[in-house]
Amino acid sequence: MNNAPTQTRAMAPGRQKLLDAAFGLIREKGYVATTVDELCARAGVAKGSFFHHFKDKEALAIAAAQHWSEATGAFFAAAPYHDHKDPLDRVLGYIDFRRSILTGEIPEFTCLVGTMVQEIYDTHPAIRDACNSSISDHAAKIEADIAEAMKRHKIRARWTAKSLALHTQAVLQGAFILAKAKGGADIAISNVDHLRRYIELLFRPRTHKERTTP
Amino acid sequence: MNNAPTQTRAMAPGRQKLLDAAFGLIREKGYVATTVDELCARAGVAKGSFFHHFKDKEALAIAAAQHWSEATGAFFAAAPYHDHKDPLDRVLGYIDFRRSILTGEIPEFTCLVGTMVQEIYDTHPAIRDACNSSISDHAAKIEADIAEAMKRHKIRARWTAKSLALHTQAVLQGAFILAKAKGGADIAISNVDHLRRYIELLFRPRTHKERTTP
Repeated sequence: MNNAPTQTRAMAPGRQKLLDAAFGLIREKGYVATTVDELCARAGVAKGSFFHHFKDKEALAIAAAQHWSEATGAFFAAAPYHDHKDPLDRVLGYIDFRRSILTGEIPEFTCLVGTMVQEIYDTHPAIRDACNSSISDHAAKIEADIAEAMKRHKIRARWTAKSLALHTQAVLQGAFILAKAKGGADIAISNVDHLRRYIELLFRPRTHKERTTP
Repeated sequence: MNNAPTQTRAMAPGRQKLLDAAFGLIREKGYVATTVDELCARAGVAKGSFFHHFKDKEALAIAAAQHWSEATGAFFAAAPYHDHKDPLDRVLGYIDFRRSILTGEIPEFTCLVGTMVQEIYDTHPAIRDACNSSISDHAAKIEADIAEAMKRHKIRARWTAKSLALHTQAVLQGAFILAKAKGGADIAISNVDHLRRYIELLFRPRTHKERTTP
């Protein structure tokens, strides 16, 4: 969830700058390592402005997760894959689009909420819940297309549209971790290719024998 | 990589206790949030003992990643899936084994090195390299079985054994993130089930038409 323009609606400029700074700094070094002073310096605002907009760093992180959902939501809503008539093409188009934005530096293509929840899931439950909403709400949009594709392509399966949608997010989050370990986007792209192949195989027409096996 | 006994060979007790404390604390709250004082308290050793064994917290983290590799390496080496004759059964047995250890509390079944690299990939390159070695060395063991399975089952593919082995690690790492977001192991298990299904589909005998398609 990345490379997205962050401005989605009218917002006080100081608040917007602080959220943008959080997007950058937290993806570079994590939530705990990021200080209020650094956030103010990156945003180019005074410390008084920070505490005018946010009670503390935790409040900023929760707002950042929510703003991340809005910004990436608008970014993906505007992507071209929604134009396909066949819902399976929309699902595969989503995967291709995710692949296409795996460019640039690691903090540019990795995920704010996945990075935060990895660290703070136990110590900051309110941030964790905001991260979970961001991931789950995004997955729900893909779930709708998967459910439609299963209906259209007459897929009767032991897996659900919801579980496959969440699997797309797990693969992307894991791909980001491997990209961080290996220092580049190539391994993330390879993992997205595996994800696409999996979805193709799940929707591949089966042989007569497979169809009639209980 | 988890639920593993951590004692692998003779080691000074203070050092062993500090590494065990790092395994616990870093998986609970991340690397940056974990302090030397907390590590000493959890380990039940004096601060002098910490600095006798480690130059600083970064040196401990590097040693912890290396010890993680040794401890989990011994744990997986002793697992029953190696007994299968067919290398594909060993690969699927590995996945089933990973699924079977997704129990207990989140810090018990999540990954030390995946948690660290998410935060410190840019700020602590030496820790990142130790984390990458841990993930990559573990993947190489699975790669060997996948490569043998591809040969045995005459799989000619556009994907490589290495990329599929790394994909198993990406799915696991992403599954841990979703478990943290959602507060339990169930979603991780669901993702491992998707991974198993993918590997089964990759190795499923193809129809005549598929085989002869260039």
